[in-house]
Amino acid sequence: MTIRTATEADVPQILTFIRALAAYEREPDAVTATEAGLLHDGFGPNPFYQCLMAEQDGRPAGFALFFFNYSTWKGCPGIYLEDIFVQPEFRGLGIGKALLQQVAAVAVQKGCPRLQWEVLDWNTPAIDFYRAMGAEFLDEWRNVRVSGDALQRLAAVEIAQ
Amino acid sequence: MTIRTATEADVPQILTFIRALAAYEREPDAVTATEAGLLHDGFGPNPFYQCLMAEQDGRPAGFALFFFNYSTWKGCPGIYLEDIFVQPEFRGLGIGKALLQQVAAVAVQKGCPRLQWEVLDWNTPAIDFYRAMGAEFLDEWRNVRVSGDALQRLAAVEIAQ
Repeated sequence: MTIRTATEADVPQILTFIRALAAYEREPDAVTATEAGLLHDGFGPNPFYQCLMAEQDGRPAGFALFFFNYSTWKGCPGIYLEDIFVQPEFRGLGIGKALLQQVAAVAVQKGCPRLQWEVLDWNTPAIDFYRAMGAEFLDEWRNVRVSGDALQRLAAVEIAQ
Repeated sequence: MTIRTATEADVPQILTFIRALAAYEREPDAVTATEAGLLHDGFGPNPFYQCLMAEQDGRPAGFALFFFNYSTWKGCPGIYLEDIFVQPEFRGLGIGKALLQQVAAVAVQKGCPRLQWEVLDWNTPAIDFYRAMGAEFLDEWRNVRVSGDALQRLAAVEIAQ
C-alpha cells in the first residue's frame, strides 16, 4: 500500500472518488464539481485543499481530502477532513486507517492541535472505526447552513455603514 | 452602526470577544489563544481567517470571524463562520443580523455557494435567529474530532509507503 500526496494528474481520479463517496452517502446527484474546478482550487499557489491518494498494488484505492480551518479558542489552525474514502474492493486492508493516520501526521507536523470532520449518523461502520481511532463526537453542536436563494437574499440586504 | 474589516489594531478586542463568546458557550476556560497568535494567523500574507468588526456609536459591539472551507460536491470554496458574537448591551439592535448579512455578502462576492457554521443545541435564541435568516440544520451529520494525546497517537504510527 502506498499513501502519497496528490498531483494534478490525479484530478480525474479524485473526482471519481468524490462521486463514489457521494453515492455511498446516498446523494449520487449532489456532485456538480468539475475536473477544471478541482484542478484550479487544489493545485494553484494558494490551494483551497490538499489531497492524499492511497494505492494498492499500483491501483487507486482511496483518498483523503482536507484543508485548514481555524480555532479561535486554541488560537491556531486545525485540519478539517472533508472526505475520506476507500473503494469497496479495497476495504478491510487498513487503507482507511492509513489515510487517517497520514492526515493526523500532517496535523501534528503543522502544529495543529485538532483534526475534525463529520460523519452521517447512520454510517455506523465509520462511526465505530472513528471511535476506535480515538475520536470524540461533539453531538451538542448542530451544523447550520445558508445556501442558494436564501444566501442570495441574506447577502442582498443593504448594510448600514 | 458600522461593520468594517478588522485590522491588526483590533486584535486585543477580537480576543476579548472570543473570551466573551466562550463564556456564553459555558466554556470560559477553553480559550488559550493569544494576541500574538491571532495577529500572526489573521494578518499575514496568507491569513487563516478573516474578521469583521461591528461598532455602535464608535464602541466595539460585536464581531464575525470566518475562513474558507471547501465543498467537494460543489467543487468550490465555501465560507465557514467560526464565531459570531454581539456584546449583551448591544443586542436587539440588529447587529448580529448585519454581521451575518455582511458575511453572506462576502460569500456571494467570492462565488461561494454556501455559508456554514455550528450552533450549540441549547442555544435556542440563536437557533431561532438563524432559522429566520433562512438557515437549514444538517442534523444527520455528527461532528467528529481527534485532538490532544489521541491525535499524537494516531499520527505516531508508522505508515507503509
